[in-house]
Amino acid sequence: MSEVPEIENKVSEALRALNSGKLSISKLDDFLGNPNLAALVRRLYLESKYNVKLSSIASTVIDFVGVVGRNIENPIGAVQVPLGVVGPLLVKGDYAKGEFFVPMATTEGALVAGVNRGIKAITLSDGARTKVLYDGMARAPLIWTPSVVEAQRLASWIKENIETLRKVVKEVTSHGELVEVQNFIVGNMLWPRLVFKTGDAMGMNMVTIAADRLCSFIDNNYPGPHRCITVSGNLCTDKKPSSINRLLGRGKYVIAEAVVKRDVLSKVMRTTPEEVHYANISKNLLGNAVAGSPSFNGHAANIIAAVFIATGQDVAQVVESSMAYTWTELRGEDLYISVTLPSLEVGTVGGGTWLPTQREALELLGVAGGGSEPGLNALKFAEIVSATVLAGELNLLASQATGELAKAHERLGRGKKT
Amino acid sequence: MSEVPEIENKVSEALRALNSGKLSISKLDDFLGNPNLAALVRRLYLESKYNVKLSSIASTVIDFVGVVGRNIENPIGAVQVPLGVVGPLLVKGDYAKGEFFVPMATTEGALVAGVNRGIKAITLSDGARTKVLYDGMARAPLIWTPSVVEAQRLASWIKENIETLRKVVKEVTSHGELVEVQNFIVGNMLWPRLVFKTGDAMGMNMVTIAADRLCSFIDNNYPGPHRCITVSGNLCTDKKPSSINRLLGRGKYVIAEAVVKRDVLSKVMRTTPEEVHYANISKNLLGNAVAGSPSFNGHAANIIAAVFIATGQDVAQVVESSMAYTWTELRGEDLYISVTLPSLEVGTVGGGTWLPTQREALELLGVAGGGSEPGLNALKFAEIVSATVLAGELNLLASQATGELAKAHERLGRGKKT
Amino acid sequence: MSEVPEIENKVSEALRALNSGKLSISKLDDFLGNPNLAALVRRLYLESKYNVKLSSIASTVIDFVGVVGRNIENPIGAVQVPLGVVGPLLVKGDYAKGEFFVPMATTEGALVAGVNRGIKAITLSDGARTKVLYDGMARAPLIWTPSVVEAQRLASWIKENIETLRKVVKEVTSHGELVEVQNFIVGNMLWPRLVFKTGDAMGMNMVTIAADRLCSFIDNNYPGPHRCITVSGNLCTDKKPSSINRLLGRGKYVIAEAVVKRDVLSKVMRTTPEEVHYANISKNLLGNAVAGSPSFNGHAANIIAAVFIATGQDVAQVVESSMAYTWTELRGEDLYISVTLPSLEVGTVGGGTWLPTQREALELLGVAGGGSEPGLNALKFAEIVSATVLAGELNLLASQATGELAKAHERLGRGKKT
Amino acid sequence: MSEVPEIENKVSEALRALNSGKLSISKLDDFLGNPNLAALVRRLYLESKYNVKLSSIASTVIDFVGVVGRNIENPIGAVQVPLGVVGPLLVKGDYAKGEFFVPMATTEGALVAGVNRGIKAITLSDGARTKVLYDGMARAPLIWTPSVVEAQRLASWIKENIETLRKVVKEVTSHGELVEVQNFIVGNMLWPRLVFKTGDAMGMNMVTIAADRLCSFIDNNYPGPHRCITVSGNLCTDKKPSSINRLLGRGKYVIAEAVVKRDVLSKVMRTTPEEVHYANISKNLLGNAVAGSPSFNGHAANIIAAVFIATGQDVAQVVESSMAYTWTELRGEDLYISVTLPSLEVGTVGGGTWLPTQREALELLGVAGGGSEPGLNALKFAEIVSATVLAGELNLLASQATGELAKAHERLGRGKKT
Repeated sequence: MSEVPEIENKVSEALRALNSGKLSISKLDDFLGNPNLAALVRRLYLESKYNVKLSSIASTVIDFVGVVGRNIENPIGAVQVPLGVVGPLLVKGDYAKGEFFVPMATTEGALVAGVNRGIKAITLSDGARTKVLYDGMARAPLIWTPSVVEAQRLASWIKENIETLRKVVKEVTSHGELVEVQNFIVGNMLWPRLVFKTGDAMGMNMVTIAADRLCSFIDNNYPGPHRCITVSGNLCTDKKPSSINRLLGRGKYVIAEAVVKRDVLSKVMRTTPEEVHYANISKNLLGNAVAGSPSFNGHAANIIAAVFIATGQDVAQVVESSMAYTWTELRGEDLYISVTLPSLEVGTVGGGTWLPTQREALELLGVAGGGSEPGLNALKFAEIVSATVLAGELNLLASQATGELAKAHERLGRGKKT
Repeated sequence: MSEVPEIENKVSEALRALNSGKLSISKLDDFLGNPNLAALVRRLYLESKYNVKLSSIASTVIDFVGVVGRNIENPIGAVQVPLGVVGPLLVKGDYAKGEFFVPMATTEGALVAGVNRGIKAITLSDGARTKVLYDGMARAPLIWTPSVVEAQRLASWIKENIETLRKVVKEVTSHGELVEVQNFIVGNMLWPRLVFKTGDAMGMNMVTIAADRLCSFIDNNYPGPHRCITVSGNLCTDKKPSSINRLLGRGKYVIAEAVVKRDVLSKVMRTTPEEVHYANISKNLLGNAVAGSPSFNGHAANIIAAVFIATGQDVAQVVESSMAYTWTELRGEDLYISVTLPSLEVGTVGGGTWLPTQREALELLGVAGGGSEPGLNALKFAEIVSATVLAGELNLLASQATGELAKAHERLGRGKKT
Repeated sequence: MSEVPEIENKVSEALRALNSGKLSISKLDDFLGNPNLAALVRRLYLESKYNVKLSSIASTVIDFVGVVGRNIENPIGAVQVPLGVVGPLLVKGDYAKGEFFVPMATTEGALVAGVNRGIKAITLSDGARTKVLYDGMARAPLIWTPSVVEAQRLASWIKENIETLRKVVKEVTSHGELVEVQNFIVGNMLWPRLVFKTGDAMGMNMVTIAADRLCSFIDNNYPGPHRCITVSGNLCTDKKPSSINRLLGRGKYVIAEAVVKRDVLSKVMRTTPEEVHYANISKNLLGNAVAGSPSFNGHAANIIAAVFIATGQDVAQVVESSMAYTWTELRGEDLYISVTLPSLEVGTVGGGTWLPTQREALELLGVAGGGSEPGLNALKFAEIVSATVLAGELNLLASQATGELAKAHERLGRGKKT
Repeated sequence: MSEVPEIENKVSEALRALNSGKLSISKLDDFLGNPNLAALVRRLYLESKYNVKLSSIASTVIDFVGVVGRNIENPIGAVQVPLGVVGPLLVKGDYAKGEFFVPMATTEGALVAGVNRGIKAITLSDGARTKVLYDGMARAPLIWTPSVVEAQRLASWIKENIETLRKVVKEVTSHGELVEVQNFIVGNMLWPRLVFKTGDAMGMNMVTIAADRLCSFIDNNYPGPHRCITVSGNLCTDKKPSSINRLLGRGKYVIAEAVVKRDVLSKVMRTTPEEVHYANISKNLLGNAVAGSPSFNGHAANIIAAVFIATGQDVAQVVESSMAYTWTELRGEDLYISVTLPSLEVGTVGGGTWLPTQREALELLGVAGGGSEPGLNALKFAEIVSATVLAGELNLLASQATGELAKAHERLGRGKKT
């Protein structure tokens, strides 16, 4: 009965404290005892302070109980990103088999339509074959030692004690498993690049905690001089493009390929294998070479960003996940096309995958939550993503080869002078 | 009166056609005459086909009339990404002046809290100074010629006719303006890298249309042998990391810096200038050098991705927008820290900036829509983003220097065994 | 009359002082008053100390008077590198016109023979066309300032005072001319990349002296806070591969190309345009992309190293001078092939070009010493080098395409088990 | 008695045939039956054709019998490169122990003197510690297969048959030994990166022949569809800079380090640990990062080129051998400095190591020919080279930190206006 007035008082008190600078927006959850209420108060505070309306942001299906701290802090609501689907995409992978409608969250007009056209051509050409060649999540602490002699000594000690280290990992994670250690030494500095299996999780948090524990273990047990500078010394590499991930892989090293028939190319895309192939060689290989881009493709990032947002992935990892080689060959009358993604970091549990809309998007693909065996859902998901990227690359090459890219932009909502 | 049954009939008909394969999901907007209805029917079709529920995705403030084609195709609803704020962030830029609460849409726990901690330290240290050194959106067609002689001839012709080309651009865009042409030649291939001013728009679509028109103009007016292979030859470079963007800039080349006081570092972050500096040198400079990463920072992508999603930017451009140099120096007792973002591609009009939640996020920063003079809002926004990245970098270095990164992950919602 | 005994005494004294550690090998020139005698005494000292014979090294046409300090210090003689020639190479350049026999100093069997085969195919196909697109030697000091604001201020000051800076340069060099300044700023750090014309000299020393003088001039005249950290901040870039040189050029940006006839390929190299093209695309483009090599060619360094040694160039500059794109296309029945060398650093005066054997090698090409107008000899030389690299690339692609590389190694002097 | 006239006739006949175009310079060895005579005739021909004198080139200690084909073709004599020495350099390595005078062949004034100064500082500071972390020569054929499925199948087959492949290698080389295979797959393409031990030889020819034989073995024994496109698919990587060599090593992965005392720095170089450290961080780390250089050092190539020419190494390999990280730290009052060379390719047998002057240079270091156990000489040599590079890096940093680089150039032979 008296609850509402109490809340109102509490809200007023909070707003006064915020306005007077006695309370920060970070303390509201504790102050009010309810994260949804805290989100409301933050909005009220900001709306008043900046004379804006945040009512659309307020409108959300997310219950911040359980979400604050886990996925966000200082929430004020949610951003809504338009969600489209492409499909049916025929995939013939080791894990993904069948026809899929892939969810893509984007605000870039023509993207979904374009990928869908690529999918049509691929599905009409017997689908995309996909294969995951490698699966491992890396975290590389950086450890200082006084000299190369000591760095090598510690590197050897780590190699020799790998079984013990595996057990230490098991104490902090039940899904994570230390697979191998790749040691890199420059001068007196050592990066033990720790590679883990992480089941259906993308696994960054898991391996960060495990790596931290391993650093502590080394501190407590290795007798030689050393100091762990950071749990992440950037040879992981997380959220930056890197040669090491391109060569050694991180997350899933996955390839999708298709042989697209000449008549399909002609009918669906009004182009030829020769034109697509020449566009790829000159634009994606030579062009990126001259640009100094280590990512030899057209727009893999477009597809990956859209699928990542849709499915609750770590969107900053689009950076390295989108490193891709698009490779084409003429095959008799037809076109061979493949995309190789050496560092696709995806998961179906953890991160944002459990949020309401994101989980539905994963369910649409049949990969929500843990797989029937740990890891199977993530592997299936990686294959689907790679096949979707393949479609995106095919379509872009085809449209550029025929001058349709700009036309698509003009036609789709941007027909007027900009 | 009879409208509802009519709609029901239409929906049933559409579903039958979809199920029988006679209709594709792309044709539903035309078939039903209403994009919101089409979104509903797509959901019904997919829910039935895959036996899933898409009710959270259905719950959206987006009215797809006007959005389909412009921002998305084949929509089924929206994805909701938790939105938090960080602030107050004191910025002393050429365009951004004052205290800001920056919206960040993310599902990565601890990110918002961490950036907020960095912001606290910066704001307590007299804020972040910011400066945009360059502003230009590039698009580089790839033009085939038979020989280096012909490639150079065409390159010269383009240079000589720049005034005419500027007029041609004016025919297709009122906000875009051709600023300069940077010619690159390899063998017989020519990339004229066209650089535009695009006002408050990020400008990719605008410059793609303009570049396409310029290619047509060249086709119709240049007498020598040539063929425009693609309107985008990857020396732009869009959605890939690249040296050319790092060196010549694309979008905004912006720098944020601060001198963080020793006692602030100690109080807010329990660390010292020396520890932060050493972590930066060893992890961000040497670590990324060894990894073969062209992006010498810790996690700029995290902040950029979160702000981009929140504000309706092109999220795939996180790839090049997150290329950043984090540079630190000891300054007497204090710490100098800067981030340099050579290719930050942002806009306050166009793309997803007009969508309901995204526009509110921009309004919160006072940069929604066009600026008082064209470009001012985008410049102000770029400065705010750079200052937020600065805070994120400072915080990460500080937490890693003190071993708090993993602890933050453990504490915030991941305290249990993973 | 008594000179010889005097010399003998002096030599004995020097050897005693060396052996007792009272004299270092660097002081011998002063001690003995004659660099040739000093070279002899160094040999005697080392022969005795290490029980070796250095008689072949002693046998040299070089008179160290005038060479010590200018080209070498602490000389003990010379190394003799076998010198072969390839040709006649038909070049149709802007500066190099006619048939050339190109000197190559190497110890790698099969290299000269292989390049010669490539030359044969090119000369039979109407020769190589060559073109220098850019000519400028860069040196980029690194200047510290306290902030981005100050860095930009100094950058602007430099731009505004370019005419004065040009005059300052004229005070220290008569051949060097400051052409332009390309400013790069990261955080508070400024690199003004100074680009010079250097006539027929490669010019590194000239521009180092000029850049040093410019730094002094800035120190004495620019009122704002700054400090020149080094005259070379690595954005030059000297003796390292770099994106900046690939994109902006350093030394000569030169291209050589040829259309090689199908029947010539068949007769001279037993291969086809298709095979060579496919080898280039898959090995030189894709292979180098995957390797993370910024140099998209087969073995440009082989040819450049051999010509550089032969002609007294700075051999350490093979590193950036050998960055090259090899690009092929099918042209009707024939093969188009080009090499683009963005950073070929060559000179015909200065450095080792005046030494006896090196000067003869340059004379053989008709490019020894200064050109009829300053720079013409260096430009001509650059074109010849590029055409020779073209021949080397063509030959390697052809031999690999037909499996002859290993056979060539086996046949030429390494037929026995190794 | 009548021999001389006979030779004269033969020479005249050869010159006539050359001048009439009936004979090519490549056929002279066969035509005249003596390579030294052929070299003479080539000179006569060229001297007459181009009206030049090649008498210095003619003056050589090289007897071309046994050298033609093995080290050179179409010889006309030799190039003489000034040879200096630096030392005594105190090395405390696993293989190199003691004081060395290192031969450097160069035409760049001030280089030898500068390195010598660095050596003085290092030797006075208890010498350089060195360590080889890895030793393996790689060759990576490129094999086409129709699909990723087939590529993986072949990759597995190679792994499974490694013992057989080792035996195949033993048939063609007694010193080479296949150590491991690192498979890389992009799309349908497979690069098995074959890594060999090659004893004291640098080993390129050996592994090329072995790789060719392995390709033949695969052709004859692997039943699946495939085609070996080239024995070298550039993932080796030879004569280009590359990430793969930087990360995985090629040749010797070697590190040299020293702790240079403050008073030594002050006395020998008039600088301080702090100045050297700051120059390294800002110039070699940040500068190269901004330049897009994958080689984070000052001028490692200078030292490596000079030692390579002096000792008969493959000079084109300076490109990847000079990839180096220079890393400094303040150590109490002193300076820690290290250089890491991940891909130093050196040998003491094979190539040009047996030529007269080159062999003497190796003898001076006590590493000529095969080691007491295979490989020991090459390992020792690699350590000496790394220590010399360390000295060169230290000196350059010190001179730049104190503005002496340009002064050194001015003083040493270039004091006049250039």
